[in-house]
Amino acid sequence: MKALHRKELYGWSVFDEARNLDFHSVLWVRPEGNVVIDPLPLSTHDAAHLRSLGGVAWVVVTNSEHVRTTRELVSAFGAKVAGPRAEAESFPLRCDRWLSTGEELVPGLVAVELHGSKTPGELALLLEDTTLVTGDLIRGHLGGRLNLLPEAKLKDPVQARASVRELLARGPRIDAVLVGDGWPVFRGGRAALEELSPAVSVSR
Amino acid sequence: MKALHRKELYGWSVFDEARNLDFHSVLWVRPEGNVVIDPLPLSTHDAAHLRSLGGVAWVVVTNSEHVRTTRELVSAFGAKVAGPRAEAESFPLRCDRWLSTGEELVPGLVAVELHGSKTPGELALLLEDTTLVTGDLIRGHLGGRLNLLPEAKLKDPVQARASVRELLARGPRIDAVLVGDGWPVFRGGRAALEELSPAVSVSR
Repeated sequence: MKALHRKELYGWSVFDEARNLDFHSVLWVRPEGNVVIDPLPLSTHDAAHLRSLGGVAWVVVTNSEHVRTTRELVSAFGAKVAGPRAEAESFPLRCDRWLSTGEELVPGLVAVELHGSKTPGELALLLEDTTLVTGDLIRGHLGGRLNLLPEAKLKDPVQARASVRELLARGPRIDAVLVGDGWPVFRGGRAALEELSPAVSVSR
Repeated sequence: MKALHRKELYGWSVFDEARNLDFHSVLWVRPEGNVVIDPLPLSTHDAAHLRSLGGVAWVVVTNSEHVRTTRELVSAFGAKVAGPRAEAESFPLRCDRWLSTGEELVPGLVAVELHGSKTPGELALLLEDTTLVTGDLIRGHLGGRLNLLPEAKLKDPVQARASVRELLARGPRIDAVLVGDGWPVFRGGRAALEELSPAVSVSR
């Protein structure tokens, strides 16, 4: 796995030929138990690396389309699973915990629900106030910038932009934005989020 | 291939298990003929994408350890090859052009020799003043920052840092730094280069 912007954060990626971008997963290594977000398939090398770093205590699935290899991590490591509360009725996987806005899964990892995306209540995760991890709604099709899921796939663009404003309000210290799809923004993430949803568009 | 920070720039990557980071290649799509820098092996998908974007007129190899699949691109596309002049005597490949500091391969692509790296006169490439493409000396082991090749592999750390200062002097408008190894810095690249070689270290 690749080190990200902090040595206790790792990521692994799979290139998606249909979209010509990388999909990503994130690992947060913690003495009290590691957390993985939206786990993609692991190579033998990365699986061994993950094991050497202590395995997985929790998997967070940001939305029902990002279940990916969660079942495998549950059976390999006895990991628990957290998912978006808004999808609890129909989630394709048994979850040990449902998360909605403001809930803390482990100390320093707080969920924020996003609205208007392809699934209801998609989770974003604010990690120690400074790193935001996103699933589908907020992405990086061009390096150094963020964009929303293309308009055609959004359930509600106005709600989506309002959710970005909520993230900005809840995360005044956000610096890194680790997206599920495309290029991460490791520094200046708050400015990139602001570009994505200028304040003026909220007041319209 | 992945879009980078500008739509006419593409990249493709290979994860290196020994170093736990991605290696990268860069493609600049130009109406007058595309330029590729340090080409890694291409998947069938990426090779078709490259062909659809017009193939390859020039391959630039930044140093003799980055020849990679240059021969294949020469035979597939009739590409010409440019390499570092300081390695001309012993380069493992026939080159059509040797580059040293200040030489322009095609309009908007200027070479700068770096010193003190593992090979003599390793090339960095300044693309339209704002994007720097590096080979081995300048890399991104942690997201959002740059670092030099580890000290043990540097021939001369003082020369290496002086080369970073020269890049800063020649590239006052650098914003993106596309590294061969590790995470690219798409915005704020000049500040990241400055962190790498603070002015004070030159005056010592």
